[in-house]
Amino acid sequence: MKKVLITGFEPFGGETINPSWEAVKALPDQIDGTIIKKLSLPVVFGKSGDMLISAINTEKPHAVICVGQAGGKASINVERIAINVDDTKTPDNEGNTPIDQPIRDGAPVAYFATLPVKSIVANLIKAHIPATISNTAGTYVCNHVMYAALHHASRHHPTFQAGFIHIPYLPAQVLEKPATPSMSLDNVVKALEIIIRSTI
Amino acid sequence: MKKVLITGFEPFGGETINPSWEAVKALPDQIDGTIIKKLSLPVVFGKSGDMLISAINTEKPHAVICVGQAGGKASINVERIAINVDDTKTPDNEGNTPIDQPIRDGAPVAYFATLPVKSIVANLIKAHIPATISNTAGTYVCNHVMYAALHHASRHHPTFQAGFIHIPYLPAQVLEKPATPSMSLDNVVKALEIIIRSTI
Amino acid sequence: MKKVLITGFEPFGGETINPSWEAVKALPDQIDGTIIKKLSLPVVFGKSGDMLISAINTEKPHAVICVGQAGGKASINVERIAINVDDTKTPDNEGNTPIDQPIRDGAPVAYFATLPVKSIVANLIKAHIPATISNTAGTYVCNHVMYAALHHASRHHPTFQAGFIHIPYLPAQVLEKPATPSMSLDNVVKALEIIIRSTI
Amino acid sequence: MKKVLITGFEPFGGETINPSWEAVKALPDQIDGTIIKKLSLPVVFGKSGDMLISAINTEKPHAVICVGQAGGKASINVERIAINVDDTKTPDNEGNTPIDQPIRDGAPVAYFATLPVKSIVANLIKAHIPATISNTAGTYVCNHVMYAALHHASRHHPTFQAGFIHIPYLPAQVLEKPATPSMSLDNVVKALEIIIRSTI
Repeated sequence: MKKVLITGFEPFGGETINPSWEAVKALPDQIDGTIIKKLSLPVVFGKSGDMLISAINTEKPHAVICVGQAGGKASINVERIAINVDDTKTPDNEGNTPIDQPIRDGAPVAYFATLPVKSIVANLIKAHIPATISNTAGTYVCNHVMYAALHHASRHHPTFQAGFIHIPYLPAQVLEKPATPSMSLDNVVKALEIIIRSTI
Repeated sequence: MKKVLITGFEPFGGETINPSWEAVKALPDQIDGTIIKKLSLPVVFGKSGDMLISAINTEKPHAVICVGQAGGKASINVERIAINVDDTKTPDNEGNTPIDQPIRDGAPVAYFATLPVKSIVANLIKAHIPATISNTAGTYVCNHVMYAALHHASRHHPTFQAGFIHIPYLPAQVLEKPATPSMSLDNVVKALEIIIRSTI
Repeated sequence: MKKVLITGFEPFGGETINPSWEAVKALPDQIDGTIIKKLSLPVVFGKSGDMLISAINTEKPHAVICVGQAGGKASINVERIAINVDDTKTPDNEGNTPIDQPIRDGAPVAYFATLPVKSIVANLIKAHIPATISNTAGTYVCNHVMYAALHHASRHHPTFQAGFIHIPYLPAQVLEKPATPSMSLDNVVKALEIIIRSTI
Repeated sequence: MKKVLITGFEPFGGETINPSWEAVKALPDQIDGTIIKKLSLPVVFGKSGDMLISAINTEKPHAVICVGQAGGKASINVERIAINVDDTKTPDNEGNTPIDQPIRDGAPVAYFATLPVKSIVANLIKAHIPATISNTAGTYVCNHVMYAALHHASRHHPTFQAGFIHIPYLPAQVLEKPATPSMSLDNVVKALEIIIRSTI
């Protein structure tokens, strides 16, 4: 039986919820006979990647899909690449503000996602969910986790698929920011199901 | 028994649907014992206002709520004011491009909406739907219809409430425009129900 | 000899400069034989309009051009209309937050600018300065001053031209906001000279 | 005597000018005793990179700074990374639309810029020019040229500094797009001088 590990994040930046975890935890436990294993990651450099790799080692999934919030985006952003740098002025949830730090010393500058990013976008659009390829996951914890997963996979699980999905705010997060885009939880959950089906 | 007349528009600008009419026609025929009368207006200067006033005279509603698409907006925009000018370089659906034309000769420069715009916004936000007051409905057919309704009301129906609601694109309209905001049809319909309940 | 009264604002909202006054005070004292009289207004409801009207009564200008900052705009916005309402959650520089207050009791809902707004925009574009008509000056102190000037003119100076120009941030104001548009002071000053020449 | 090779692009996408070449050709021929060698590149995959490498081999510069237009950006974007993929639906100036093509087969996924990107941004901000690090140069000809330069340098010129600078539209390019940011040519040229001084 196939297994997909899908992760969301705990709230950060003063928000009380994180739409990534809200959406991940709303997924069913099986999709088309594939087991969906859900994990909430801390918004903390280092710790988030360690927890993810430990879950990969325990669960031995066939694919890893990490999900995070990209406040201000209007569509599902399927990340193409993770880069080997942590760089932020915004503290993570434990107050870390790494500047220009490699995530893995001596490791490659970047990895391309091994999820089928183009067919994921095509399938989302076919289902009437706005979606696009993104060429940067930033240099905060989202990119950190994506890089950690892809680096680990490249060394230990060459056939396993991994990648990162950025999702918009939920409507409830932008009530006082009327010009900021959002996407309904229903549509985000539906998007994640399509992404899982496009992967397995 | 109370009656609300609510209008949407036919498609325009190369779009195949208009979310305003999609949402209006999805409303129930009664809400809390109030009859909901639905009307699709043409995106045509003059004709749209004439058809609206004719429906007002026939239906004798207690309130008139006009709804239109505001491509690019991220939230429900409750319009505060209609101004006495048609001005566009974009042709309407019959090819008219009025420049700086008064809608009603010799009539006031502007009318404030007589819908309870502030409590509508408050009720939408309470229901977790992003919403804001807007201070301009533009100078295209949306503003034309709003001005026509308010001018007619000021002369013939002083107690009747009227106004205009601008809504975002639906997700299906922005599939190729990943940075453009949208709102799910479910949320738009729910918003219109709240607006009706806030009015009657 | 003709005279134009042109106003800017003092800084507000935590900014240390206000580009409107920076640009106004950089203008020459005469343009094509017209005297340019410059005035800095406080960002205070009531007081700003009173000071403007008092200057109009003293200076007896042929035209009044008020200038204000519209943070986030990318081009010169020539305002078409002022509306009879003060409405803000953002305190002015004396802490006032009027909600839905008429600026002049019993006065018209709105006035159109009496500056030649369309030829101003055309002349700015001809000079390669991005410009557009705007249909709302908001409901803060900018709109307050514009309404006060147009209401005063309508009653006491029927031939006198008045209006409002919103300008972008200066580059120095957006150094930490790399996605926010700005316009160089040189171009704003050049724009104001063109606006004055388009008016007199 | 030191030498910097700086490149701009010819116009593309229906524009009649390209601000990158307008700015590059406005630079002096020497800055602080460093020779400034200027080159206009075609907006063509392959050809642009070949012409750049050929100029590097002929001129033997100490640093290579490539400049391109990023329509819609409001500030100077100093690119952090180039990635090994050409991917576009927008044809280049010879009609090529590569999809997911590696730029150099078997070469690394990405290279970090070897320009001092953080001190460039700091120096621009100190000079009151809005600037930021960007984490993606896209997957069009700009990224292609940046990757080509960094890959060539990594193999043949390990000490040579290279990178890419994205600049906003000029005001003259957005006259009909009043919500689109721009930057004056004076400020772009000043920015390029600061970037050169920060590099040599």
